[in-house]
Amino acid sequence: MLSSSTCSPSFRQVMNRGGLVRLAGAHSPLGAALVQETGFDAVWASSLEISAARCLPDASLLTMTDYLAAAAQIQASCSIPVVADVDTGFGGNMNVAHMVREYERMGITAVCIEDKHFPKMNSFVDRGQLLLDADAFCSKLQVAKSVQESPEFYLIARTEALIAGMGTDEALRRCKMYADAGADAVLVHSKAKAPSEVQEFLAAWDGRVPVVIVPTTYPDWHAEDAHRAGVSVIIYANQALRATVQAVSSTLKLIREKGTSTPVEDEIAPMAEVFRLQKLQEWTALDS
Amino acid sequence: MLSSSTCSPSFRQVMNRGGLVRLAGAHSPLGAALVQETGFDAVWASSLEISAARCLPDASLLTMTDYLAAAAQIQASCSIPVVADVDTGFGGNMNVAHMVREYERMGITAVCIEDKHFPKMNSFVDRGQLLLDADAFCSKLQVAKSVQESPEFYLIARTEALIAGMGTDEALRRCKMYADAGADAVLVHSKAKAPSEVQEFLAAWDGRVPVVIVPTTYPDWHAEDAHRAGVSVIIYANQALRATVQAVSSTLKLIREKGTSTPVEDEIAPMAEVFRLQKLQEWTALDS
Amino acid sequence: MLSSSTCSPSFRQVMNRGGLVRLAGAHSPLGAALVQETGFDAVWASSLEISAARCLPDASLLTMTDYLAAAAQIQASCSIPVVADVDTGFGGNMNVAHMVREYERMGITAVCIEDKHFPKMNSFVDRGQLLLDADAFCSKLQVAKSVQESPEFYLIARTEALIAGMGTDEALRRCKMYADAGADAVLVHSKAKAPSEVQEFLAAWDGRVPVVIVPTTYPDWHAEDAHRAGVSVIIYANQALRATVQAVSSTLKLIREKGTSTPVEDEIAPMAEVFRLQKLQEWTALDS
Amino acid sequence: MLSSSTCSPSFRQVMNRGGLVRLAGAHSPLGAALVQETGFDAVWASSLEISAARCLPDASLLTMTDYLAAAAQIQASCSIPVVADVDTGFGGNMNVAHMVREYERMGITAVCIEDKHFPKMNSFVDRGQLLLDADAFCSKLQVAKSVQESPEFYLIARTEALIAGMGTDEALRRCKMYADAGADAVLVHSKAKAPSEVQEFLAAWDGRVPVVIVPTTYPDWHAEDAHRAGVSVIIYANQALRATVQAVSSTLKLIREKGTSTPVEDEIAPMAEVFRLQKLQEWTALDS
Repeated sequence: MLSSSTCSPSFRQVMNRGGLVRLAGAHSPLGAALVQETGFDAVWASSLEISAARCLPDASLLTMTDYLAAAAQIQASCSIPVVADVDTGFGGNMNVAHMVREYERMGITAVCIEDKHFPKMNSFVDRGQLLLDADAFCSKLQVAKSVQESPEFYLIARTEALIAGMGTDEALRRCKMYADAGADAVLVHSKAKAPSEVQEFLAAWDGRVPVVIVPTTYPDWHAEDAHRAGVSVIIYANQALRATVQAVSSTLKLIREKGTSTPVEDEIAPMAEVFRLQKLQEWTALDS
Repeated sequence: MLSSSTCSPSFRQVMNRGGLVRLAGAHSPLGAALVQETGFDAVWASSLEISAARCLPDASLLTMTDYLAAAAQIQASCSIPVVADVDTGFGGNMNVAHMVREYERMGITAVCIEDKHFPKMNSFVDRGQLLLDADAFCSKLQVAKSVQESPEFYLIARTEALIAGMGTDEALRRCKMYADAGADAVLVHSKAKAPSEVQEFLAAWDGRVPVVIVPTTYPDWHAEDAHRAGVSVIIYANQALRATVQAVSSTLKLIREKGTSTPVEDEIAPMAEVFRLQKLQEWTALDS
Repeated sequence: MLSSSTCSPSFRQVMNRGGLVRLAGAHSPLGAALVQETGFDAVWASSLEISAARCLPDASLLTMTDYLAAAAQIQASCSIPVVADVDTGFGGNMNVAHMVREYERMGITAVCIEDKHFPKMNSFVDRGQLLLDADAFCSKLQVAKSVQESPEFYLIARTEALIAGMGTDEALRRCKMYADAGADAVLVHSKAKAPSEVQEFLAAWDGRVPVVIVPTTYPDWHAEDAHRAGVSVIIYANQALRATVQAVSSTLKLIREKGTSTPVEDEIAPMAEVFRLQKLQEWTALDS
Repeated sequence: MLSSSTCSPSFRQVMNRGGLVRLAGAHSPLGAALVQETGFDAVWASSLEISAARCLPDASLLTMTDYLAAAAQIQASCSIPVVADVDTGFGGNMNVAHMVREYERMGITAVCIEDKHFPKMNSFVDRGQLLLDADAFCSKLQVAKSVQESPEFYLIARTEALIAGMGTDEALRRCKMYADAGADAVLVHSKAKAPSEVQEFLAAWDGRVPVVIVPTTYPDWHAEDAHRAGVSVIIYANQALRATVQAVSSTLKLIREKGTSTPVEDEIAPMAEVFRLQKLQEWTALDS
């Protein structure tokens, strides 16, 4: 039997299991299959990864249509839930409502929306980030929750207050408002080289909803330590993409320089591994 | 200034330069950017890679729409030509005509069509491959050439005669017919562990059109040796995909096991490299 | 509140209500909204309409991706079920399995698959139609039923035996085989100018599954008479498309000739009607 | 031979012919084929029509991806140029640059961008429209012109100053700025019941670039009179859509009420007309 995409639990079900929830980023079903096989709990359909795969900046150039297609293809092929990075919600309240309806319709059970203005710029790019007024963002969150079809749908509200240099107090103020507006969890993003500002946030957080982090710039903080400090979800957002860039680049260089792929054959997956990931045997069984 | 996709030469122009032409496979603009940077002459928009990225077998499950979207996105982002793997042409003569028109419209200047039946199965899968009657395939080639809009459009006819165990004579007979029907080049595919059957083909080939090879199973044959033996084009079709599988898998495993991404940070590309491939600076300059 | 697409009953639920079920063809959500408003029970996502909207023949030129996108957009916007015309299933057994999974994933609860070869040609085009061997078609039906996720999924098997001039006995033989292979209903297609051959079929049919008809060429047979003769489902497949062609053509001609749209203003819907169909009020309420 | 999409002249070539240029709106290749047959000079790929076909408000809910796909399908099927309605350019300067590159790549030779904020609302909806600062809009126009690949690309700048109740002087001030920023033409939009404010604009316009109008609410002004008053391009933006709504609705009602399609058969196009629009004969000739 073909393994079934609809066997995937919802992200809410994964959260309800308790314990630290670990996500890794992907931009394709192939990447997601490897995320799943490695034992992660869910897939982060990362805007950075999806736009980088298209050689475009993570700056609202790709559209909801593009991001949704990528997230839906990923969800269709794996049996752990996808958490879709939906940036600002792609515009105003009406866009947020349209987004929730379209993502739910495609089987996505969780999205993460952030409090930047549309069009957004990636958080790690060195530009002043101007945030949306907190009330306006709460209005988006309320609209999102009001149009969701299924009670399973899970909404993560992400604040860029630390990224924008507005400090921990503002991050806390916003996250409380977001939780009260209906967010099922908050993501407090930071690009500091150490976890201190996130730790400060966690120390003061009252736990009204779970906290999500993305430790790209402070990788040394161990997952278990973060969990003990109050983190419920960790997203390893872009390491797989960066591994791809490095591996493809060095593989192609060696082939080009040596005039043969022989030197790389032992460093790359065999064809049989590709066939396995394509579920070739399950499919060809249908033809017999 | 944003670098321009339409600056790409056509594949015919690349062929006209003379010398050995080297292609590497990709399934995304990101992969194609790395192919281009490494100095390859063109990108192979591989059906195997594109279907594997979707975790589906390379068996005509994805449609022309899917393969074309992938090839067009790749061509839009790079300045070397894409050669699109179009399998069987997606059906009969009318499908081939539709394919040529749609691919040309999207800026693709070369396609490679093969003499299997629709739906096809990947050549490296161990199943008896039944070939289309040579005359019927010639009819497809004639239709393709008759509907092309631009004289630049380049048609590669691929025979699976060696894959199907029909021998070198049949491969030669078919390739001559295909060239006479209008193919601009022939691809003689083999899954032998050594290049001997391809060498036999080349020794008997009268050179009426250029010969293309895909040395996946016989990597030890050096490109320069192949060129001296009469090969005009070499396609490294799937090594980048296989490098991706290996690298993503091992990176994720290490993160999952160690509870932090610290151990992989030195093995993967830095964020700055991702930003460079996204052409971030060129884009943000538009906002100043 | 925005009216909800997921409120649509499944097609099986509609069939279970009993009574004659009436479908009308559409190629867009707009057309489907009018089908629903008029009181039809379900929408026929017609290959003829969808390909005609693209100015392409109904001959397997558009792909599963294209037809599915159209059907899914329709289903997303209405609260009656879509029955998707899936032609031959887009290839062999594996394509049929892929089709069922993709259509189900997009919320489609019923499809209709026919016993022609891929690539197909529209049934009303005057060409000899060669049918697929009945056993091979039954294999497709079995595969379709074996991969369906939901027990709700409804499979209509359409025979072209009458179209192909093979007679009522062959149509009966095939439909019995198709029902036994798992089809939930059979569609017996005819392009005769009178319903006699369909009536002959119905008189001999043992009722093991419901019968569907498409009375394009024999419109005079009243729906109630057909129902009394044993028909469970009637599809008015293309009249809306043909009404569109006529109306758009004559409206544009009048504007072009008269140099003003004044003469057509009373013959066409007002802007307010367009806004109503766009559900403008429900949407703008989200912004207040 | 299949008629060729790439035979279409550019919109600039059509403008260079001199004389009044007439456009009619379409949302599909079928509609565009009828626009072309009726003798219009170009097709208006209308955001209102395209969003209405999806039963969604014309309010930036559909994305650039969706609008571009529709415009590109239309251009692919006809031999008159498409002028694409690109709303606000889908965001800021970077979005405008991305838009120009993507539209050009898909063969679109003219776009029309308007000076509203993103997300936009349709001009005929009764809500206060707040306009973008004129300098910021000029920056968008400059970016658009700076990234265009082909000198053929034609940029129409549309002001909503009259719609927003800012008066003729502001409309004139903006249109002069837009022309000086590089716009190839200006569209002065009005929803007045009479052409007086547009006439006032034209009387004061110095003709530095051509003027485009959309006489939806003032249909009585004859095209030739408008042309004599200084109008170069008239767009009949939505009449075909409104004809479709009326015709499909009344056709379906009659079928539903009468229980047969007989009463509508004489009012709708015959199947042969559908086949002609699908270019069936040209296509099937490829199979012989």
